[in-house]
Amino acid sequence: MAKVLGVLGGMGPAATVAFLARVQALTPAQGDADHIRIIADINPQVPDRNRQADAAEAVLGQMAMRLRDAGVQVLAMPCNTAHAQAAGIRKVGLPFIDMIIETTEAALSATGDAAPRKVGVLATPGGEALYTRSLQSKGCKIVRLTGPDRETFMGCIHAVKRGDTGEAPRAEMRRLAAALVAAGAEVVIAGCTEVPLLLDADGVSVPLVDSAEVLAQACVRVCG
Amino acid sequence: MAKVLGVLGGMGPAATVAFLARVQALTPAQGDADHIRIIADINPQVPDRNRQADAAEAVLGQMAMRLRDAGVQVLAMPCNTAHAQAAGIRKVGLPFIDMIIETTEAALSATGDAAPRKVGVLATPGGEALYTRSLQSKGCKIVRLTGPDRETFMGCIHAVKRGDTGEAPRAEMRRLAAALVAAGAEVVIAGCTEVPLLLDADGVSVPLVDSAEVLAQACVRVCG
Repeated sequence: MAKVLGVLGGMGPAATVAFLARVQALTPAQGDADHIRIIADINPQVPDRNRQADAAEAVLGQMAMRLRDAGVQVLAMPCNTAHAQAAGIRKVGLPFIDMIIETTEAALSATGDAAPRKVGVLATPGGEALYTRSLQSKGCKIVRLTGPDRETFMGCIHAVKRGDTGEAPRAEMRRLAAALVAAGAEVVIAGCTEVPLLLDADGVSVPLVDSAEVLAQACVRVCG
Repeated sequence: MAKVLGVLGGMGPAATVAFLARVQALTPAQGDADHIRIIADINPQVPDRNRQADAAEAVLGQMAMRLRDAGVQVLAMPCNTAHAQAAGIRKVGLPFIDMIIETTEAALSATGDAAPRKVGVLATPGGEALYTRSLQSKGCKIVRLTGPDRETFMGCIHAVKRGDTGEAPRAEMRRLAAALVAAGAEVVIAGCTEVPLLLDADGVSVPLVDSAEVLAQACVRVCG
């Protein structure tokens, strides 16, 4: 039985629309009626997840409640960083597909028979903290960006947020992924939903696990 | 003051996602917070607008009510055909941006100083009926597809709905637009939100007025 999916979005808006397109692309459909019904709250005014965590948690909780009251049955949020504030969402009592857990599991099976020992993560500081915990709980080590590369990464994310997905931020993102591989990463997680707007699997020499793609697959599996 | 936009979508799903991307592309933004908050109900199970009009009107009314209760302040629906069932939406008492009216006005000003006398329309039978009335009220004549071209058009729309936006339906759509121009159209309205997924302005020898683009512009104007 198909379920109505509720999407807590807008962090950022372009990443949310790309996520919605992925869910559709992953749904086997011969016509409109085969697709999943999605109610998406694309709210670009959610307080900054890195700087105003408590306020963000409260707003995300309100969004989840309104989505529940509008009839959604399952919740998902295509923003890795905001998962640090997911407690507010979980309080509403609907199943919540956790992007960090799903992506971690996908990364562990991305290298074939043997799970990777070192997993590179392209994420904001908040997203890195979540993946550090999640990977460590599975016995993996996280490989992070270091030094000025951290600033460069955030510059790329802000470029996407102001509409720039051109060659300059793309080249930077490929270089950052390569830096993680040089530091030992056997898999790279695109752990921020803006990353896949700049980087695809061809741009990385090890398997790339795209958190937005993984979450979209999970949504189709649960709601389709 | 920015307003929350409610989108009645899913007719079809790909057209709705393309519409959301257009609203974002048309919004002047340096970061997330500059974007419009949108709550979109992407409901691919709205009953067929051509065959079950009353059932569709009831469902659209329910969707509009839930969007209102979720906090939206303005409503828009990126599906031309479904505007025949807009009465259910209007009953909820929120401003509703009418895609047919907006697109008709855009078509009248698309040929510079002199308004066109004949306007070609690429639309479903239901959409054609709406544009016929709307254009006639402005003293314009509608140029429609005739004979087997009508079936070909619906075939292209269904191709998009099953995920095919390849060269075959694109070539057909260019040919259909050319048929309207050959029949005297001075402007062509892409009067079905699937059309722009197959046809752009370069594919038509007269100005092309894209109803999805026009509605997105109106949403940014009203809600931004």
